[in-house]
Amino acid sequence: MKLVRYGTNGFEKPGLVDGEGQLRDLSGVVANIDADVLSPAGQKRLAKLDPETLPRVKGRPRLGVPFVGISKFIGIGLNYSDHAAEAGMATPKEPIIFLKATTSINGPDDDVVQPPHSTKLDWEVELGIVIGSVARYVPVAEALGHVAGYVLINDVSERQFQLERGPQWDKGKGCDTFGPIGPWLVTADEVPDPQQLKLWLDVNGVPMQRGSTATMVFDCATLVSYCSHYMTLLPGDVIATGTPPGVGMGMKPPRFLQPGDVVTLGIDGLGEQTQKVVRAPHA
Amino acid sequence: MKLVRYGTNGFEKPGLVDGEGQLRDLSGVVANIDADVLSPAGQKRLAKLDPETLPRVKGRPRLGVPFVGISKFIGIGLNYSDHAAEAGMATPKEPIIFLKATTSINGPDDDVVQPPHSTKLDWEVELGIVIGSVARYVPVAEALGHVAGYVLINDVSERQFQLERGPQWDKGKGCDTFGPIGPWLVTADEVPDPQQLKLWLDVNGVPMQRGSTATMVFDCATLVSYCSHYMTLLPGDVIATGTPPGVGMGMKPPRFLQPGDVVTLGIDGLGEQTQKVVRAPHA
Repeated sequence: MKLVRYGTNGFEKPGLVDGEGQLRDLSGVVANIDADVLSPAGQKRLAKLDPETLPRVKGRPRLGVPFVGISKFIGIGLNYSDHAAEAGMATPKEPIIFLKATTSINGPDDDVVQPPHSTKLDWEVELGIVIGSVARYVPVAEALGHVAGYVLINDVSERQFQLERGPQWDKGKGCDTFGPIGPWLVTADEVPDPQQLKLWLDVNGVPMQRGSTATMVFDCATLVSYCSHYMTLLPGDVIATGTPPGVGMGMKPPRFLQPGDVVTLGIDGLGEQTQKVVRAPHA
Repeated sequence: MKLVRYGTNGFEKPGLVDGEGQLRDLSGVVANIDADVLSPAGQKRLAKLDPETLPRVKGRPRLGVPFVGISKFIGIGLNYSDHAAEAGMATPKEPIIFLKATTSINGPDDDVVQPPHSTKLDWEVELGIVIGSVARYVPVAEALGHVAGYVLINDVSERQFQLERGPQWDKGKGCDTFGPIGPWLVTADEVPDPQQLKLWLDVNGVPMQRGSTATMVFDCATLVSYCSHYMTLLPGDVIATGTPPGVGMGMKPPRFLQPGDVVTLGIDGLGEQTQKVVRAPHA
């Protein structure tokens, strides 16, 4: 299934996108796309539905973050060896975990706000793993059983905040609007191999990132297992699994985002995002 | 006011501790100690109550985390210059921000669980700031106006996870039970100067940390303002403001926690915590 939340920001309704790409209203079936829906039992209940029986939604409403209840927004650093090289850093021997502030969570096509004093605003197309059931000290072989599905994420990053204002990255990863998620939560049954997905990102229509999850240093199963050894993962928690090469800081000379730039990105089967970069009202 | 939540873990009731130290039941007045109660309007409503009119709670029930709704658990690194020295790190030029996973949040007297494979479990007594109203790009002079109150925190840390498993600290800061908070949320009106509070921590009754918030590198107002420039602070968010000298990793030789150890800590006017260290059931 492709689960979505559609409508005005803060008032989204649950929905699904059927096999023909038609948006259908789920609000008669569930109140929201939340931890209950993401759970194995919740997914089983929804899978019994015939999408044809659900009301069609007319037009092209805004899509929001496709689910609610993200208590932890985990990021994995330098998880593509080519990206580590362009960032001038060594390929990590084990996954690097950081946390994005949950206030950074943003709709897939909502504006990305450049913070005041930001000078190095950058992009990162990433595969996001959405947890469906509590995961604590999970072995690798069982890890994907805790995954509800996958999402497209732009792990927006401010490199000056991340890398030049102290040793910790969180400052440059969690600004408001730095976490576009969506458009769809694609349930795991529709992603037979999360390590065979192409990712892409353009800025103003110019190709910037082209990659495949096949070149991850640590695969999705390893990441879920590993993270679950350092913090209990709850349904709704998200792991952004790192970005392939082609970020702005890796270019010669570096190329950073400015107000007016338009970022488009996508992953095979997980849909696309479009964000306009805007100046902060506080700037 | 000293606000609390008391009772069995997961089923706590709201309460307050009156001027005589008597625990009183607030469940007839509010459903929980949450963002509404922490807001300036919520605090005003509560302040009108005569505690004498509230039912006394008999006995000494367990105290839980004194409020709910912590969307972000922010930590500040190396915010006492003496602690930076003992950690072998430079005093930061600006605040270091990291995030503790919210699944680390723990009652003030609940057990601290040593994770499997942990070898360097350490303690950090800290003053916690609790946000009462949305704070975004707040000037220093207005910052304390967004503070609902203060809490005692043990920023439990696993140094091997934090410092020897990659460049980011979050892995060693957010394990389950690593964030004891409480016993009380003391409202800001009862903390006339948050920079004049003595902090202490003992292990098995042996003094380890003795300090004062007077020696913070960046004071509470600066921290709230600074954090609000990198992420919007929401009511219920917590900032753990760093620890004074005396942590286990700074000793010669280093002294780390083992199952069976008992950690006690306190801050002037904010109460005390007692935690027993236990082995993980998964170990």
